Amino acid sequence: MVNVVEPLLNGQKMTPATSNHSPMNPINTAQALVQTELAVVETLLRALPDLQPESLRRAVEIIVSSGGKRIRPTIGLLIAGMLDKMGPPAIHLAGAAEMLHTASLVHDDLIDGAMVRRGAATLNAAWTPAATVLTGDYLFAYAAGLAAKTNSVRVMSIFAETLGVIVGGELQQQFTDVALRRTREDYYRRIYAKTASLFVLATTAMGVLADASEAEIESLRQFGHELGNAFQVIDDILDFTGDQASVGKPVGSDLRRGLITLPTIYYAEMHGADDNLACALVGECDPATYDVVINDIRNSNAIPAALDEARKMALAARQALAPFAANPYRDALLSLTDYTVNRSL
Amino acid sequence: MVNVVEPLLNGQKMTPATSNHSPMNPINTAQALVQTELAVVETLLRALPDLQPESLRRAVEIIVSSGGKRIRPTIGLLIAGMLDKMGPPAIHLAGAAEMLHTASLVHDDLIDGAMVRRGAATLNAAWTPAATVLTGDYLFAYAAGLAAKTNSVRVMSIFAETLGVIVGGELQQQFTDVALRRTREDYYRRIYAKTASLFVLATTAMGVLADASEAEIESLRQFGHELGNAFQVIDDILDFTGDQASVGKPVGSDLRRGLITLPTIYYAEMHGADDNLACALVGECDPATYDVVINDIRNSNAIPAALDEARKMALAARQALAPFAANPYRDALLSLTDYTVNRSL
Repeated sequence: MVNVVEPLLNGQKMTPATSNHSPMNPINTAQALVQTELAVVETLLRALPDLQPESLRRAVEIIVSSGGKRIRPTIGLLIAGMLDKMGPPAIHLAGAAEMLHTASLVHDDLIDGAMVRRGAATLNAAWTPAATVLTGDYLFAYAAGLAAKTNSVRVMSIFAETLGVIVGGELQQQFTDVALRRTREDYYRRIYAKTASLFVLATTAMGVLADASEAEIESLRQFGHELGNAFQVIDDILDFTGDQASVGKPVGSDLRRGLITLPTIYYAEMHGADDNLACALVGECDPATYDVVINDIRNSNAIPAALDEARKMALAARQALAPFAANPYRDALLSLTDYTVNRSL
Repeated sequence: MVNVVEPLLNGQKMTPATSNHSPMNPINTAQALVQTELAVVETLLRALPDLQPESLRRAVEIIVSSGGKRIRPTIGLLIAGMLDKMGPPAIHLAGAAEMLHTASLVHDDLIDGAMVRRGAATLNAAWTPAATVLTGDYLFAYAAGLAAKTNSVRVMSIFAETLGVIVGGELQQQFTDVALRRTREDYYRRIYAKTASLFVLATTAMGVLADASEAEIESLRQFGHELGNAFQVIDDILDFTGDQASVGKPVGSDLRRGLITLPTIYYAEMHGADDNLACALVGECDPATYDVVINDIRNSNAIPAALDEARKMALAARQALAPFAANPYRDALLSLTDYTVNRSL
């Protein structure tokens, strides 16, 4: 693997990390604090050593570059800043968490047959399944290599465990009985596996790198877990309440492809199962019925109820940071936590 | 992950490792030396924590159980014995190497559309592509977890690098121009990626665990590289010379599916390209023509030439062990090396 971190940290010009956000929002403010390190993470993510042929490499670069808000590395780096342990290991860990996320998306898109993600063509839209499987594997290997560069056995263990949780969650989802998919237990297991586990990797492993106490590492774990869950619940709410242009996919797209999320679970609890909801819960409605159900959920008190649940998680996340001394990085993490549950709804 | 190593090493009854070989051959003799540890590796390989549902778990257990000769863990454990560093880290490393091999086979079978491997149904014969992709990922994660249990950062780096080499090799194979596939360079790159790299992992990382000197680790790398290459060349010769019953697949099956191996490369060099060979080199013969070409190669001097090349590698492997003091483990490694190139041809 190319060692790009040290030279980049030693004064080369940085390109700012990608951001789709207005200059004033808390993500931008937070990212400004770790701008130099985020730029190095960005370089690491795009290094893709030995990826051949060139056309596949370019396709993967586009996928890596269209990687959204870089929320995982941002949080990881802010934790490193809060613990005063910024440096190459923290940067490699931040990169490993984001690359692991990207690798899992490549296999997810293959499994779901998705053709577009975040506005860019998925690998399996243009390449064979073989190339897509192997590219996902390649990105897993690259992520593992970045994690190994932290030089911490315990971080590597957490990394391997996180990979197991992500994949185990996906695997279980393939086989979960349709009746179980509407339970809170299954929902929280799913969102832990796909989202919160990566937040926990970024926060907990950063504590390990900073030689934090076990109590502090547990607090960081709670922070990552609560914030990751809140982040995903809000994403799932936005899938109902957002307009298609800003969310980038049709309203209610999760439910339309059979994915039961917290708003639907609340709606079913609050309203009982009418015929429309019943078909949506088993993923078998016609498009017009989906339109009706999604509109019903969107305008119901299931939305504020789910939002209230996310805000409680965000509060718990804030409280998990209470043991740490106040500094600009902790302030940024608290602001980011608030922003996570106050995004345009 | 369940910690099964310590209790198993402390006197529980062992089941012997699977072996298809007669009691007198060198593999059995070698395996007898590390029988206890191999049995623990076997238990680790079958532990498959949290793999759901039960039916998938059973399918994966069958794949793991039909895992051939366990040559990689056997060599790794013999190295550990030779270096007097047998113990849980060595056992976890041996398990990690074999599990990484198994994981790569699961994705390979999906990519090749193979339905049977080693007499057992492949995962993709009975399960969806999604389940197969994710099960391979699960096994990668499990292998990474085993590697992390060695408690060595450098071993984890070697592990991640090996995963990258294996996947990179597969990926490159997907895109290599047909004209390049008949070159020695491409052949040796391929067999390093798919076979020798895992031998190198088992030998080199064992040296790291044993705090061997850098010169010794380099010798172990050479040993693994030469032995792994020799092992694969012989496998590729047996594909031509073995009878279908003992090899378990049709004679010349590699060539029939477009895979150019050393005997074919020698044959093309020695005989020039007739029409039959020309169609085989681009993977486009009809079955009767394949029969003719394969019979021609089988009866040609390409076979002894390839065998001679493998024997030179085995000799180089033997020489790589010269710096180490003689003991029963080193003797077993030397016998195994000889046996590798003297298997029934």
